[in-house]
Amino acid sequence: MKIGVVGLGLMGGSLARALKKYTSHTVCGVDKDPAVLAAAYDAGSIDCDGDVSCCDIIFVCLFPQDSIDYMLRTEFREGAVVADICGVKRAVEDRVALPLFERNLRYVGTHPMAGRETGGFGNSDADLYQGASFIITLTEHTDEQAKAEISRLAREIGFTRITECSARKHDEVIGYTSQLAHVVSNAYVKSRAAQDFKGFSAGSFMDLTRVALLDPEMWSELFLLNGDILAGEIDELVENVSALRDAIRAGNGQALRALLKDGSDRKKRLNEESK
Amino acid sequence: MKIGVVGLGLMGGSLARALKKYTSHTVCGVDKDPAVLAAAYDAGSIDCDGDVSCCDIIFVCLFPQDSIDYMLRTEFREGAVVADICGVKRAVEDRVALPLFERNLRYVGTHPMAGRETGGFGNSDADLYQGASFIITLTEHTDEQAKAEISRLAREIGFTRITECSARKHDEVIGYTSQLAHVVSNAYVKSRAAQDFKGFSAGSFMDLTRVALLDPEMWSELFLLNGDILAGEIDELVENVSALRDAIRAGNGQALRALLKDGSDRKKRLNEESK
Repeated sequence: MKIGVVGLGLMGGSLARALKKYTSHTVCGVDKDPAVLAAAYDAGSIDCDGDVSCCDIIFVCLFPQDSIDYMLRTEFREGAVVADICGVKRAVEDRVALPLFERNLRYVGTHPMAGRETGGFGNSDADLYQGASFIITLTEHTDEQAKAEISRLAREIGFTRITECSARKHDEVIGYTSQLAHVVSNAYVKSRAAQDFKGFSAGSFMDLTRVALLDPEMWSELFLLNGDILAGEIDELVENVSALRDAIRAGNGQALRALLKDGSDRKKRLNEESK
Repeated sequence: MKIGVVGLGLMGGSLARALKKYTSHTVCGVDKDPAVLAAAYDAGSIDCDGDVSCCDIIFVCLFPQDSIDYMLRTEFREGAVVADICGVKRAVEDRVALPLFERNLRYVGTHPMAGRETGGFGNSDADLYQGASFIITLTEHTDEQAKAEISRLAREIGFTRITECSARKHDEVIGYTSQLAHVVSNAYVKSRAAQDFKGFSAGSFMDLTRVALLDPEMWSELFLLNGDILAGEIDELVENVSALRDAIRAGNGQALRALLKDGSDRKKRLNEESK
């Protein structure tokens, strides 16, 4: 098969590298930066570049809005499988699922759950996806065979878990487990107290702020495209944190213990369920 | 020397075990639970029990209020070094530093920065403190020689970094780096969305909620005794999280990018400073 990879950043670059390392497919790369294309050729991660109109499968690995624009305006082969890899799914699906279906293209929404603090082709890695989870979002138009082909490719390049769900379910789960974590981490480091704690071990602090370092361009776009769900999650967190603060400020030990026990019990159950 | 360890839970139990493993001092254990004392004898972690009035150094390893009460009401040898290990230091120092000084006892406030999710002598470990940080809080009455003895013991049982500071500085740093992290983690798991995300990898979620599981009795006491600082930190976090939420809800990409860049830049600087 001939597989197109559009956008050779961290995710697309890693995808191209992995396809060359773990499959025998031909990879056609697309990137607006000639230096990136040159680097991709040097790395042996693409076989050709530019025109994806003869590709059987095209992975669009751009930021969400650019991905939408690209899928809507590009000529693909009749019946081609067109997949995006965006971290928000309703916003993409709402814009492209029906138009692509009507053009006889087979759209598959995906979210490869892997990443690094720093992006770009220079940080891409053929093994970025080893052992990771791969989400496929289903619409009423999803083609079964296209889905199966994407799943098989995902397994071939290292993903060990393929999960299927609706775009809404994806956005709800990601809004809570990933986006909210990034919001809280990013806010946590802004305290005045963050300036001087040399000499103290700060294991909990490091956990809480591991994902504070992020690409503001990409994450602001992701946050805004999932704004309804994410803002609701932030509201809920603020409410729960404020309840703890109010009990602390009131010196209400009984209320505080009950609130802490509730959170602790929930975490215990989550730990048990994930065993 | 004869060293008393009062309260053979996770911290005191580990301290007694470490003193027996790494030093040749005699260890006198105190615990209200006869079964714990029996287990401590079985483990070879104490040599005698009950009466600490002949000990040269006494580590009081109880909850904060119990530690205060114990230090104020117990007979110690003239000139004995009396150390607490509580995770809040102003509240303890304010109550005991002067009274003990006036009794010719040498009080040293300490905070061994180590722990586990589950407490009790059964989880104690002679190597719990290997490589950990040890905080000593100084008052105007701190005896230099007593401080030096405690430092030496701390190094002997595995601590690799000894940090000295005021009780206020300790409480500010711990309020931010540890207590706030526990509050946020504990609140994070309370979202309705926490109930079902099987099939999704949740690395960020796991980081954010690692310390959600906690002992409500102990932590509520610690939180309340550092309530002014901790509530202020929660206020600040709520403010910073709310600013992000407001930008998201308003669809204000420019404001959102600026806020995220600010947090990300701060985290980057912290990472560089800690290198």
